[in-house]
Amino acid sequence: MRDDESWRIRRTDADLDRLGETESLLALGNGWIGWRGTLDEGEPVEMPGSYLNGFHERRELTYPEDGYAFPQHSDTVVSAPNAALVKLWVAGEPLDLRTGTLRTHEQVLDLRAGVVERRTEWISPGGHGVRVRSTRLVSLPRHAVAAVRYEVEPLGDDPVPLRVCSDVQANERVPERGDDPRAATVVHDPLTAEARRSDGCSGVLVHRTGRSAQRVAVAVTHETEPPDGFTTSDDCTPDRLRLTVEGRLRPGDRLRITKFAAYECAPVDGTPPDALADLVAAEAADAREHGFDALLADQRAALDALWTTADVELDGDPELQQAVRFAVFHLLQAGRPDGDRTIPAKGLTGNGYDGHVLWDTESYVLPVLTYLAPEVTRSALRWRHAHLPEARERAAELRLPGATFPWRTIAGRECSGYWPAGTAALHVNADIADAVLRYVAATGDEEFVGEAGLELLVETARLWHGFGHWSDDGAFHVTGVTGPDEYAALVDDNLFTNLMVRRNLRGAADAAERHPVRAAELGVEAAEIAGWRAAADAVAVPYDRKRGVHQQAAGFTEQPEWDFAALTDDDYPLLLHFPYLELYRKQVVKQADLVLAMQRCPGEFTAEEKARNFAYYEARTVRDSSLSAGSQAVLAAEVGHLDLAYDLFAEAALHDLADLGDKTTDGLHLAALAGAWTAVVEGFGGLRDDRGDLSFAPRLPARIRRLAFSLRWRGQRLRVTLTRDEARYELPDDPDGTVELRHSGEPVRVTGAAPVTLPMPPVPDPGPEPPSPPGRRPHPRSTP
Amino acid sequence: MRDDESWRIRRTDADLDRLGETESLLALGNGWIGWRGTLDEGEPVEMPGSYLNGFHERRELTYPEDGYAFPQHSDTVVSAPNAALVKLWVAGEPLDLRTGTLRTHEQVLDLRAGVVERRTEWISPGGHGVRVRSTRLVSLPRHAVAAVRYEVEPLGDDPVPLRVCSDVQANERVPERGDDPRAATVVHDPLTAEARRSDGCSGVLVHRTGRSAQRVAVAVTHETEPPDGFTTSDDCTPDRLRLTVEGRLRPGDRLRITKFAAYECAPVDGTPPDALADLVAAEAADAREHGFDALLADQRAALDALWTTADVELDGDPELQQAVRFAVFHLLQAGRPDGDRTIPAKGLTGNGYDGHVLWDTESYVLPVLTYLAPEVTRSALRWRHAHLPEARERAAELRLPGATFPWRTIAGRECSGYWPAGTAALHVNADIADAVLRYVAATGDEEFVGEAGLELLVETARLWHGFGHWSDDGAFHVTGVTGPDEYAALVDDNLFTNLMVRRNLRGAADAAERHPVRAAELGVEAAEIAGWRAAADAVAVPYDRKRGVHQQAAGFTEQPEWDFAALTDDDYPLLLHFPYLELYRKQVVKQADLVLAMQRCPGEFTAEEKARNFAYYEARTVRDSSLSAGSQAVLAAEVGHLDLAYDLFAEAALHDLADLGDKTTDGLHLAALAGAWTAVVEGFGGLRDDRGDLSFAPRLPARIRRLAFSLRWRGQRLRVTLTRDEARYELPDDPDGTVELRHSGEPVRVTGAAPVTLPMPPVPDPGPEPPSPPGRRPHPRSTP
Repeated sequence: MRDDESWRIRRTDADLDRLGETESLLALGNGWIGWRGTLDEGEPVEMPGSYLNGFHERRELTYPEDGYAFPQHSDTVVSAPNAALVKLWVAGEPLDLRTGTLRTHEQVLDLRAGVVERRTEWISPGGHGVRVRSTRLVSLPRHAVAAVRYEVEPLGDDPVPLRVCSDVQANERVPERGDDPRAATVVHDPLTAEARRSDGCSGVLVHRTGRSAQRVAVAVTHETEPPDGFTTSDDCTPDRLRLTVEGRLRPGDRLRITKFAAYECAPVDGTPPDALADLVAAEAADAREHGFDALLADQRAALDALWTTADVELDGDPELQQAVRFAVFHLLQAGRPDGDRTIPAKGLTGNGYDGHVLWDTESYVLPVLTYLAPEVTRSALRWRHAHLPEARERAAELRLPGATFPWRTIAGRECSGYWPAGTAALHVNADIADAVLRYVAATGDEEFVGEAGLELLVETARLWHGFGHWSDDGAFHVTGVTGPDEYAALVDDNLFTNLMVRRNLRGAADAAERHPVRAAELGVEAAEIAGWRAAADAVAVPYDRKRGVHQQAAGFTEQPEWDFAALTDDDYPLLLHFPYLELYRKQVVKQADLVLAMQRCPGEFTAEEKARNFAYYEARTVRDSSLSAGSQAVLAAEVGHLDLAYDLFAEAALHDLADLGDKTTDGLHLAALAGAWTAVVEGFGGLRDDRGDLSFAPRLPARIRRLAFSLRWRGQRLRVTLTRDEARYELPDDPDGTVELRHSGEPVRVTGAAPVTLPMPPVPDPGPEPPSPPGRRPHPRSTP
Repeated sequence: MRDDESWRIRRTDADLDRLGETESLLALGNGWIGWRGTLDEGEPVEMPGSYLNGFHERRELTYPEDGYAFPQHSDTVVSAPNAALVKLWVAGEPLDLRTGTLRTHEQVLDLRAGVVERRTEWISPGGHGVRVRSTRLVSLPRHAVAAVRYEVEPLGDDPVPLRVCSDVQANERVPERGDDPRAATVVHDPLTAEARRSDGCSGVLVHRTGRSAQRVAVAVTHETEPPDGFTTSDDCTPDRLRLTVEGRLRPGDRLRITKFAAYECAPVDGTPPDALADLVAAEAADAREHGFDALLADQRAALDALWTTADVELDGDPELQQAVRFAVFHLLQAGRPDGDRTIPAKGLTGNGYDGHVLWDTESYVLPVLTYLAPEVTRSALRWRHAHLPEARERAAELRLPGATFPWRTIAGRECSGYWPAGTAALHVNADIADAVLRYVAATGDEEFVGEAGLELLVETARLWHGFGHWSDDGAFHVTGVTGPDEYAALVDDNLFTNLMVRRNLRGAADAAERHPVRAAELGVEAAEIAGWRAAADAVAVPYDRKRGVHQQAAGFTEQPEWDFAALTDDDYPLLLHFPYLELYRKQVVKQADLVLAMQRCPGEFTAEEKARNFAYYEARTVRDSSLSAGSQAVLAAEVGHLDLAYDLFAEAALHDLADLGDKTTDGLHLAALAGAWTAVVEGFGGLRDDRGDLSFAPRLPARIRRLAFSLRWRGQRLRVTLTRDEARYELPDDPDGTVELRHSGEPVRVTGAAPVTLPMPPVPDPGPEPPSPPGRRPHPRSTP
């Protein structure tokens, strides 16, 4: 791996008017703690955020017209006390980049080191110059630990009076973010102080939330290396711990403060405040004992191990090379390999969508992590399993069998406040089942099936079997649901849903037969399995014979067309300018839906159907969702429109880096980032594994000379290297390993003994590129 | 007309635990003022209410997940200051029916006198007995005037110290009514005092609302006839006017106080407070000048005139005879013949549905008043016309052509907070057009067409023409809408909607051709008219050939059946026990929808189709809406199921009198009351006029010996009298009059010269009664 700019995300003084983006892009996390990339001094700030996975407050939902089973509460992410803060006063004036003179400034996210480095040279309004450097990390190996090293040097020839305050601040003010329905609901002052300790360089704050009854403790301990003449003092209020170091810093001297923080949370009726305080204090002390440099070394070692599998090399487009590494980095740090934590739609990088977990996790993020860090997928699926009780309760409330998982949630309860695009989007249940099946196929982890996977499959299969119905036409129909396309709702036989239901039912049947004892414990009998298989075989597949295309849902292709000619660029996203009344009943598609069905269930369509379907839906898909571009790229590549595929890939990859959706401030779109990897590996690598068979149909876009990536597959690391002429498959880590795969349809056996090199298959000629809706074709960058 | 109990609604001490019902049942109104039938003393009370038509406050709506064009405000009815109050203290103890000893008590609504008489004999806890009598009226001829006469006599042999306070109270406390979504939203203390006057026996309060910026003034003036030794004083605070009369009342003496009240309201930027105060003071003084007995005489004369047309004589079922007169009385007093006021769903009898106007008005109430008091229909349609600007604005917001009238409103703006059953119920626009067409057909009032009707027809026709679309099948489709059945939403080609669209388009075309000059002013050209006619001819009519029935909407009969066998009585109404997710996708019908289509557009179906459709939908209709029974009764009668028709009629007629829906406290269900008349006249009288041709196909139910009713038809009063053997048609008021009609299909010419008597036609034998859903057949009372 070359040490070039593709491994760094650099934000400078030129980006200071887009602080919110910087805060999201430079967020650090380890699947447990998330620290946004705020400035050390906490100001200026667009959206502060220091999150713990699952830590939230509960609030009431009210409806102008309430209805049965409308959720009456929602959970919303709130910040834990922020321990990242280090504030500086120079001769009494606060370091604030909006004042004085900024000579240089940058914050750099180092994707291999896993740290954010900050460098600032600033002349205070009073004329005192300082150089500030900081290094911030959220430890990947130590789930509870984050740390900051902060250094100040004088720039001029005179001593400078300095005061540095290292703070932990609870209830930081979070600004409201306008009336966009996709932004977060802000809960002000969510934390109530329960206990505090302060002892020189160390301290602990313990707080609790009100209605969600969660307790959070944060400990900090410091290493200070003050030059002579500096004094240290501490101060503790219910919402703030502060260590103050002050004195006159001489030219050539350096003031350095290193802060080690540890976070835990627990239910209020779980660990008592003192015990939780003891725990975090010990974790912080242990980190200090280990030392900052050792934390840095551990961090790099952990990332080195991850990058060995996860790196994607993309020769020919340095910007997208960087974007893909950025994407993969954020996916890697979003989850944890241990325990049962999941990954919210924005990870722990912002409070968008109220910090909720949506179908994004199982449908976009886990299918990537299954190949790069399957332990993280397992952990996230265990989290779903841990919330089966709430899903069963919700199904009972909805008067349905089995389990219905929430459309939006933090703690397992349904938090969606608009049921036609929430509760009705039952496909999330099949998406979870699909993630289980993919994980098991890629890992062969049958132990997980017995422990959690089978129960997830069975309860979702029961839902579908009871929810669907047999009709006169001999088909099994799933009606009145909402599919992935949110510009349609309450449709019949959404094809994506139906094909995923088929996978769900068959997957449950297969797994139950492989695990008969566990299946019997779950009350599964042969007749139930037979019912699942019969329904799976018969699911309705709406098809328009006249137009020769599948229907996104029954009747879709007979709906009125959208009047694209009447639109201007200002009319996008359509959901902010048109009522659902119009969007729902017309042939306008927000995001890949039938196209996603072709991606997830490729064996259900012929190549010709895929090409016709792709062209038909491409012309009607406006990509008002960040979830869409990656999937469209995969299918564009498959049917042979490589330029379009490349431009769609670029859109997914740059969604946050270029803030294409103008929402990056609220947090990163992890599913879009996952889409970037997916566009490369499923699109250009041609990876498919929907039936547990690994296959590749590689095809390089014009601009890319060489593409290399790795996958974990049943305990092996398979490395794939593609050039214009050749595809090389190898197992670099295990001389005794073997992987069976297909290359362009032909079976190939790869062993650890030697790479297999095969010619690149020809790309089908699909004819002219199908039109996108006017003004909605992705920006062209396919030709350099 | 015999003077029997069928002309009175009597509530006694036995009803004191159902005060809320009494308050609604005994409400008085004149289409402008509405006084609930509360006790004079104001306590105990379940729901106070003194309303002015259109007087409301505005409040914010908030959504858990907001969407484009979701209404951000709603209007909600609030009480004007209550001038009905007269409070009594007996030897220092307040008259309160919950204390002391109640010897007798009754409140009687006299349907011919148009007053509520109250008689109470009460022994105070201290042992002093009094007889209290009051008479309350809301003047039909004088829109602004209401009055109360209040009398007290001692019951025992000793003088009784009395204090009587005649109050006007603003901001009476309104209790919250639980979490049923159909109840009102309570706005506390909606009125702010602006001005007050008090001058002995007279006084005025002027208040304003906050956000809706409406000003209300109420004046009172009193006639007191105090016996010797009584003193009178007055007292005035911002929210209360009080006249106090006190002294010792000797046996044989009587204390009588008569209060004359007048109400007006205006926009805050309209009439200034003083001018409004002057106006109401003059109106109150004028009423006093006229005298209470003269007001009583005027009231009876006004009602006599109305009852001449409106009375329905139903020999054989005294309870339903009373119920029908009760229903007609409330319909008559709900509207005004002058100006441009409409009739909310609950009239002015309660704050249910926030006092909103819904489609109930044009679809249920106006079709009755068109025959009984067509001036009231005209006034209500003028109100719609006055709110065309808001309807055009709303259409533009929805990015639709023409006008879209609100689903719920007070002041013309959309106030519905659940769009799938609000904004999407576009049929309200066709319902308004239909009410225009029926009014014009019954009255021949072409002046109204030029002034308002044509514009209503044209703007709604434009909506449909732009909203619908032509499909490959050569049909004109209206998709993604919600029909009358609220257990379905966002359906395609709801048959009721489509047939009403056809009427709307054709009616607009016909009217435009009859009024070419006005049409040209509205920009209607020949091509537009041709487009309307083409679409009207081609509207899709979904039909299930296999089952031989029409479909409520495309695909309805292929939806899963509802599992009625699994229900218990506690599961009704279903909307409080099942999610829309289940209700919408299954064959369960809340209320007449296809059946309503057959009622409104009878010429669109053959007799055989009606019979098959009725049976199919009867088995799936649960009548969770009070709108339903009347329409089902009409069709049951038409297809020949007279026992079922009678029982459905009874359910409609008794809906409020017997509080079948447990919601009468919130106000009367005017559409259900209208349904009672409709069941009688359209069901048993067999009245139809959907194409402007008046026809009757009469058939008496078993229990009814004789049925007589009248209609106003093109300036004539047509009286119809049905017995077992004969139908008699006559024009009693105009010896020179002529009406053409059909009797059982045969043309008949009725003149003022002599009645026409014809044999009753045979009733078709429809075979066995179709099943209703288990447990949902109406209570049988068809056989005495």
